[in-house]
Amino acid sequence: MAVSEFELIRRYFTSNKMLNPLNQLGVGDDCALMSVPEGYELALTVDTMVEGVHFFAEADPKQLGEKLLAVNLSDLAAMGAEPVSVTLALTLPEINEQWLSSFSEGLLGLANKFSVDLIGGDTTKGPLTLSVQAMGVVPKGRALKRSTAKVGDLIYVTGRGLGDAGLGLKVEQGSYAAEVDDYVLRKFHQPEPRVREGLKIRGYATSCIDLSDGIASDLKHVLDKSSVGATLDWDKMPMSKAVKAYIEETGDWNLPISAGEDYELCFTVAPDNVSSINIECTQVGEIERSAGLRVRRLGVLEEVGVKGFEHFS
Amino acid sequence: MAVSEFELIRRYFTSNKMLNPLNQLGVGDDCALMSVPEGYELALTVDTMVEGVHFFAEADPKQLGEKLLAVNLSDLAAMGAEPVSVTLALTLPEINEQWLSSFSEGLLGLANKFSVDLIGGDTTKGPLTLSVQAMGVVPKGRALKRSTAKVGDLIYVTGRGLGDAGLGLKVEQGSYAAEVDDYVLRKFHQPEPRVREGLKIRGYATSCIDLSDGIASDLKHVLDKSSVGATLDWDKMPMSKAVKAYIEETGDWNLPISAGEDYELCFTVAPDNVSSINIECTQVGEIERSAGLRVRRLGVLEEVGVKGFEHFS
Repeated sequence: MAVSEFELIRRYFTSNKMLNPLNQLGVGDDCALMSVPEGYELALTVDTMVEGVHFFAEADPKQLGEKLLAVNLSDLAAMGAEPVSVTLALTLPEINEQWLSSFSEGLLGLANKFSVDLIGGDTTKGPLTLSVQAMGVVPKGRALKRSTAKVGDLIYVTGRGLGDAGLGLKVEQGSYAAEVDDYVLRKFHQPEPRVREGLKIRGYATSCIDLSDGIASDLKHVLDKSSVGATLDWDKMPMSKAVKAYIEETGDWNLPISAGEDYELCFTVAPDNVSSINIECTQVGEIERSAGLRVRRLGVLEEVGVKGFEHFS
Repeated sequence: MAVSEFELIRRYFTSNKMLNPLNQLGVGDDCALMSVPEGYELALTVDTMVEGVHFFAEADPKQLGEKLLAVNLSDLAAMGAEPVSVTLALTLPEINEQWLSSFSEGLLGLANKFSVDLIGGDTTKGPLTLSVQAMGVVPKGRALKRSTAKVGDLIYVTGRGLGDAGLGLKVEQGSYAAEVDDYVLRKFHQPEPRVREGLKIRGYATSCIDLSDGIASDLKHVLDKSSVGATLDWDKMPMSKAVKAYIEETGDWNLPISAGEDYELCFTVAPDNVSSINIECTQVGEIERSAGLRVRRLGVLEEVGVKGFEHFS
């Protein structure tokens, strides 16, 4: 990389002070160095966002930086891991200082909130592509996996309602023209990673996943990995007033179960451990022996196909 | 991500068997899990390659996969870290199975050679952008940094010669039309990361960097970080017959010190420790108190500017 690029990275993405004492060496050497305390293991995840695919060209760079980090922290949350550090692979068509300044403000602002340090990365020229890898720590053997749900477990989701982010996207794209609460748009642009919730449920949840593609799609991964099935109770799903109004108007009751980007946690708990639950969440279904995913709605049971976000279709 | 993508990743990038016992959980959950042994810390690095910037559209995908991993392993080598795992952020314009198959063959082939597992990643649609993050372990406090070169230290480089990769690029691009040894082209397309050398010099080297942009540019980072200067002896530089012939023909004596992508290690050793050296390397200069980088050639001393690869210029 050239001198101007080093200068650029230094200015917007380098901090002299580490927030998390586990981070030993940050940007500026061949590698970054991080400690993992005895008795812990490292959890790591990577998510990429591409202009024109995951965000609009005119997207607010501050919200973009924040969201890119949020989706990675959400993956750590879903493992019950405590976030420690991130790296950033930034591919930019040109140096736009205003864009960089806002983007780093968004990313580092959220990082600060969780005492996470940006400890490394690479900046290259090319079509706008943003890739963050997040590192966290979790006590050995206690990470929340997708493969450990058991028949009889109850299924829970965090948060106030599903489908808000999906509705926010529809409003943003102009395909739904109602006046909606700011919360709905914020849910789409600035999802809150459920890091604290992930740490709290680590003691009693039997499995966990974060909701990036909609519960009907994401829960399927848990079912497949755990070799079980499930029924979701549509009538129990938490939904905001805005989502309820949308469904009433359009009849699209699929939204809360198939729209992505809510970044809530979906986790399972054995019936005996329900009294341990210490976070805001709603029971929305049950793990069953019979394979596949069913949805019960107004007393009628339907088999659901997976409706994910088909990047290549 | 959609079902077809999961299937795709499973097919080309997932292995059921971990090669390195430190890797606890691979592709297929919210996060990957990795152990770091007691007394060690984690070293991590990320490198991105973009079509049209770092490689030609018609580049051999197998060599590309191999090179992408090699440049990351080279960063671990420069820290004296032992490679353990990698993640891959893959942005693809379309699903091309033949391309994917060759790319993964190259990447995983080299990974196997170093017992490195691919433990996570993200696949997205967009302009071809390849980003690898490599993780390794190094005993606490023993990583080879850029900031610890001392006045009086001797400067060494690994390998048979500098400038071979740069010459390979010229031949590949058609700007130099001589018949060259296959080794020169291989050096450009398939650099060998000096992982074993990095581990061997860890006990006695005082600083280290890998040569990605040419020694004149890369050594400057060591000098800046260590607050020292240096003189390089051009006449001592190891050079292949091909590079010597090129310089004779063109007069471009800058090539071995300013051409990038050799991925050799450049490290410093205190004069008292020279007898500890246990790898093939050549002494090419000395660390000095006086700031800046000088090159002595045919008895004449010249101050050198930094000639890196200017992505944004």
